[in-house]
Amino acid sequence: MLKVGIVGATGYTGSELVRLLHFHPEAEIAFITSESHKGKKFSDIHPQFRNIVDIELETVDNIDPESVDVIFLALPHGVSIEFVEKFINYDVKIIDLSGDFRLSSKSVYEEWYKKEHSFEDGFNQAVFGLPELWPEEIEKAKLVANPGCFPTGAILTTAPLVKSNLVDKSRIVIDSKTGITGAGIKAKEVTHFPNVNDNFKPYGVKFHRHTIEIQEQLSKVGNTETIIQFTPHLLPIDRGILTSAYLIPTKKITEETVLNIYKEFYNDSYFIRIVDETPEVKNVRGTNFVDIYPTYDERTNTILVFSAIDNLVKGASGEAIQNMNLMFGLKEETGLNQIPLKP
Amino acid sequence: MLKVGIVGATGYTGSELVRLLHFHPEAEIAFITSESHKGKKFSDIHPQFRNIVDIELETVDNIDPESVDVIFLALPHGVSIEFVEKFINYDVKIIDLSGDFRLSSKSVYEEWYKKEHSFEDGFNQAVFGLPELWPEEIEKAKLVANPGCFPTGAILTTAPLVKSNLVDKSRIVIDSKTGITGAGIKAKEVTHFPNVNDNFKPYGVKFHRHTIEIQEQLSKVGNTETIIQFTPHLLPIDRGILTSAYLIPTKKITEETVLNIYKEFYNDSYFIRIVDETPEVKNVRGTNFVDIYPTYDERTNTILVFSAIDNLVKGASGEAIQNMNLMFGLKEETGLNQIPLKP
Amino acid sequence: MLKVGIVGATGYTGSELVRLLHFHPEAEIAFITSESHKGKKFSDIHPQFRNIVDIELETVDNIDPESVDVIFLALPHGVSIEFVEKFINYDVKIIDLSGDFRLSSKSVYEEWYKKEHSFEDGFNQAVFGLPELWPEEIEKAKLVANPGCFPTGAILTTAPLVKSNLVDKSRIVIDSKTGITGAGIKAKEVTHFPNVNDNFKPYGVKFHRHTIEIQEQLSKVGNTETIIQFTPHLLPIDRGILTSAYLIPTKKITEETVLNIYKEFYNDSYFIRIVDETPEVKNVRGTNFVDIYPTYDERTNTILVFSAIDNLVKGASGEAIQNMNLMFGLKEETGLNQIPLKP
Amino acid sequence: MLKVGIVGATGYTGSELVRLLHFHPEAEIAFITSESHKGKKFSDIHPQFRNIVDIELETVDNIDPESVDVIFLALPHGVSIEFVEKFINYDVKIIDLSGDFRLSSKSVYEEWYKKEHSFEDGFNQAVFGLPELWPEEIEKAKLVANPGCFPTGAILTTAPLVKSNLVDKSRIVIDSKTGITGAGIKAKEVTHFPNVNDNFKPYGVKFHRHTIEIQEQLSKVGNTETIIQFTPHLLPIDRGILTSAYLIPTKKITEETVLNIYKEFYNDSYFIRIVDETPEVKNVRGTNFVDIYPTYDERTNTILVFSAIDNLVKGASGEAIQNMNLMFGLKEETGLNQIPLKP
Repeated sequence: MLKVGIVGATGYTGSELVRLLHFHPEAEIAFITSESHKGKKFSDIHPQFRNIVDIELETVDNIDPESVDVIFLALPHGVSIEFVEKFINYDVKIIDLSGDFRLSSKSVYEEWYKKEHSFEDGFNQAVFGLPELWPEEIEKAKLVANPGCFPTGAILTTAPLVKSNLVDKSRIVIDSKTGITGAGIKAKEVTHFPNVNDNFKPYGVKFHRHTIEIQEQLSKVGNTETIIQFTPHLLPIDRGILTSAYLIPTKKITEETVLNIYKEFYNDSYFIRIVDETPEVKNVRGTNFVDIYPTYDERTNTILVFSAIDNLVKGASGEAIQNMNLMFGLKEETGLNQIPLKP
Repeated sequence: MLKVGIVGATGYTGSELVRLLHFHPEAEIAFITSESHKGKKFSDIHPQFRNIVDIELETVDNIDPESVDVIFLALPHGVSIEFVEKFINYDVKIIDLSGDFRLSSKSVYEEWYKKEHSFEDGFNQAVFGLPELWPEEIEKAKLVANPGCFPTGAILTTAPLVKSNLVDKSRIVIDSKTGITGAGIKAKEVTHFPNVNDNFKPYGVKFHRHTIEIQEQLSKVGNTETIIQFTPHLLPIDRGILTSAYLIPTKKITEETVLNIYKEFYNDSYFIRIVDETPEVKNVRGTNFVDIYPTYDERTNTILVFSAIDNLVKGASGEAIQNMNLMFGLKEETGLNQIPLKP
Repeated sequence: MLKVGIVGATGYTGSELVRLLHFHPEAEIAFITSESHKGKKFSDIHPQFRNIVDIELETVDNIDPESVDVIFLALPHGVSIEFVEKFINYDVKIIDLSGDFRLSSKSVYEEWYKKEHSFEDGFNQAVFGLPELWPEEIEKAKLVANPGCFPTGAILTTAPLVKSNLVDKSRIVIDSKTGITGAGIKAKEVTHFPNVNDNFKPYGVKFHRHTIEIQEQLSKVGNTETIIQFTPHLLPIDRGILTSAYLIPTKKITEETVLNIYKEFYNDSYFIRIVDETPEVKNVRGTNFVDIYPTYDERTNTILVFSAIDNLVKGASGEAIQNMNLMFGLKEETGLNQIPLKP
Repeated sequence: MLKVGIVGATGYTGSELVRLLHFHPEAEIAFITSESHKGKKFSDIHPQFRNIVDIELETVDNIDPESVDVIFLALPHGVSIEFVEKFINYDVKIIDLSGDFRLSSKSVYEEWYKKEHSFEDGFNQAVFGLPELWPEEIEKAKLVANPGCFPTGAILTTAPLVKSNLVDKSRIVIDSKTGITGAGIKAKEVTHFPNVNDNFKPYGVKFHRHTIEIQEQLSKVGNTETIIQFTPHLLPIDRGILTSAYLIPTKKITEETVLNIYKEFYNDSYFIRIVDETPEVKNVRGTNFVDIYPTYDERTNTILVFSAIDNLVKGASGEAIQNMNLMFGLKEETGLNQIPLKP
């Protein structure tokens, strides 16, 4: 039985980790920390867990990192850095859910995140935790940088075509739409109900940080520099990311070829469901599934690929547990067999 | 391992039964029937189950009722009658999720449902399946009439006070608010998105069928005729019923007395959570939990009780499985330990 | 042409005042103030007004109160006090949209608002601005305290019966449900989208400030002390208040009597629509209308009354303009003939 | 004063026409027809109009087309054809809100609409009613084919660039997102609340009928064949279309050039607001405004243009009235100066 520690309990990724790990057959939660709520019960912060998970929150100073096998860092960007630096020297594996170690280098991070990074060496040790792409690296990793929610959707949607070398890699349009939980648990103007409800808008146009994360990963997948146009939009829903991707074939192609590329690429991937109609986010709600629908438009000579994920599960905490499973030799789906809550 | 049959797969109660039974440790689904979709896969109708529950739907004519231990009837009101009459002669237990056998008699049914009932004898055999009230009757039942969604909320919210004989039983106000899934899976004017979204209204004022179901049960609980004013309202949400009840004490009372009445009444009830702040429907979403908040207003000499349930789970399919557990000697919570999906 | 000043432009009541006054045929906006945004354009704060109302926001220190005929104070509770005290000495009428002068006295205010009130004399001068009840007082008023949103709904829903002396005034249940804009424009935990969406809950149980406002007005209407049980609930919608009231007749009564009481009471009230089916909030969205549905339940001997208003219009800014109309001898509906935006 | 007739009162475009025309200073509604509801009041069908528009619905057989100056056909696709054919011979102008005469020819219609068209000559007479593009043709038109909702958004978003000849016209990606009212007032599976709420999905991929309408108009604007990839998505909101367009420059370009192209193109267009941040649908709700945000991404050498409209107003009934204004020599904004209802 794996012993698991969670650092940072107040956010959505923290509560989702607990929801998913509570019934994991091969793991048990040893501690949950919160600096702002130490001494309170976990269910005081997340009352849906009343009578289910009432364990007391601890301060991170009191925990022994080596008392557990793996620590999940469910912390904001920028805050994770110091904890990674601290725990990296202990005999414990680390899965960091923040964006602090997802990119290739300190300089790329500083360019796109517009702030300094104080632990350059972490970039050398971190493995990008997208299990469908890099299972072998993840199995051996000491430190996993869990992907961003948009990148999980965008990369899984386009990687098979990028790898196939059948598309123009200088011109990939990724039009993404996310539920509001992507903005976190803290109330802000952008999450104020009347600003979201019955509304819809793009944001982060041209400069969203996830752009570079997607580009770097696709460039690695296809072994060539890949340029993407990434535009996120904000949906009046809690959970879910729908990715719409537009790619230009560089060779003659058919619907069947496209479909086969996806089926082969994801042949061994438990969570990928290649579907034959347009996906919808509610079909994966609360789960680690990814519904992908690739199609080819002969009229315009364009490949369209649509996918749906739950941003808090496959886009964060579920993927983190999937990574944990790989890191400890378990089947990737262990503890992740939830059924979508629909409607 | 119990063998389970589900008659009626197309609706929400059918899909929720499958969601909850799929991982039940002591039960397995033997068949699912659908007359309108026979031959299709269950996941063709409910695509969220793709790769999870792909079993083929059968016609009810082809199934052997005695091949299973229990049959769930997930059918509309009126349609259940013939199936109850048919299966009652076989060696199989029946849990009927419709309203066809919840009331005390054919005449009461016909008065409130405004239609004829063709199987009078069923009323004698049916046990009202509210496990928190009648566990012993349910354990011995051959036929369980699973309660309505509103009645489950309303009765659990008020039963402790009604039983205590401390309140005026001729004047109980129950103001209920439900999510739209209570109206079923079939598109109708009342469920048309623009008619629900950003809207709110009462309906079924004075004459809603659930009124008599609530009254009959409370009258039985308190052993005196009880009159309730029940008003349902329609919320622009998928799931959940919030019940607000107002009761008048007939003796001098305190906040503490009220609280103790609830704690004692529900001392052995796994799914009841007596909470110390106003409940919200999202805290129980997807689960069989009931959050109840009783309080006393000294200023007005009124007892207020609020509760939250998921209408599709505790208000339908979860409660049905809880009944099954009791009927077969299992702990009531077996297979029903889901964690609320929030947000 | 009336000249109008608006103090406080950032909130929802401010933006609604501007929306409604912009086309008012007998009034024109002379200034809008904002301390936090002075120098910016009104449409910078409320971009829906781009190209429509781009006037520059001023600091209140720069305005001459006597340059206008009337000043609307669209300020938070507590903040209005000083401005009322300041402007009361000028030759200008004041309509205060806050709760600072709605109650009968400083002591009642301090008991229910839990804070000190520094301008006691204001209570003597303020007229409670519910035009359907006190038109003559409003016509002569120098200072109008515009009613709260819940009180507007609750009082209009029950006043005819309270006045008629046909109901028990010691036991009126008012179960209200409001859209989230009632909580204001500022992002807070309670307005965080994932906390509201697909959720529903009561709040402010037993102690909400509007309780006393409703009680005082109904006591005045009926000329006897009236006790109400008021419970607000939070809807996942932007706008609208649905009030459900339960009253006990003290004499024999019929459906027809009840209906006639309402029709007579509101015979001259332009904005009251007595409807013959349950009202819904979307039918009055964006307008000053009040849809009221009174009915009598013979079975339980209870009168039920339901009403729908737009909390930002009839519950705030529309009612304020209706008051202005009366104060300046205009027809009450002048400039307030918007058609509900539905869907 | 123009006399106006409306044929087809039950749908959303019908009710929006009435909402907007009721206060039009130069037009008055002479009749409204409905075959399914003749004899009822308009407000029986659309209760938000109670006490405002209670006029009786007539059967179309009883009306004299020449008793009015203009007839709006607010009818479903396919149904309009016969009425256009009937009214075209009378001395009355016709504005058809259906899709029956928007395309260039009977054969194109039959290819994309998959049904026969019985009035070929109508295509010769019909003018495509996009006032920002073809004001002079509209002024002289006898029959105006009012544009589709998606085409209105898509064409206005891209026309300036297409006309400028600075972009690749063989490869324009238009990713559109619409509110559910676009699907009409009739309840269907796709509009069933639980299927829409907290959900999001693309639909009509590759083959949506509006594709050809957009292509034909852009080809006419740019005087070259233009190919677009159009993908609609379904938002869980009532109203609004957000269009995200991606275009590839064929020459060296700058942000400033792009901006100037839009400002010049729409210099005289009252309803176009070129905005300097990403648009949101709630900023135009209930109005005829179009918020457009063009920008250039140097990193990817792509032009991105985003726009927001209200699908029922600028995408249907508001645009129809704008057309009427032009056809009768009025300023295009007459009667269309509503302020967005936000929040």
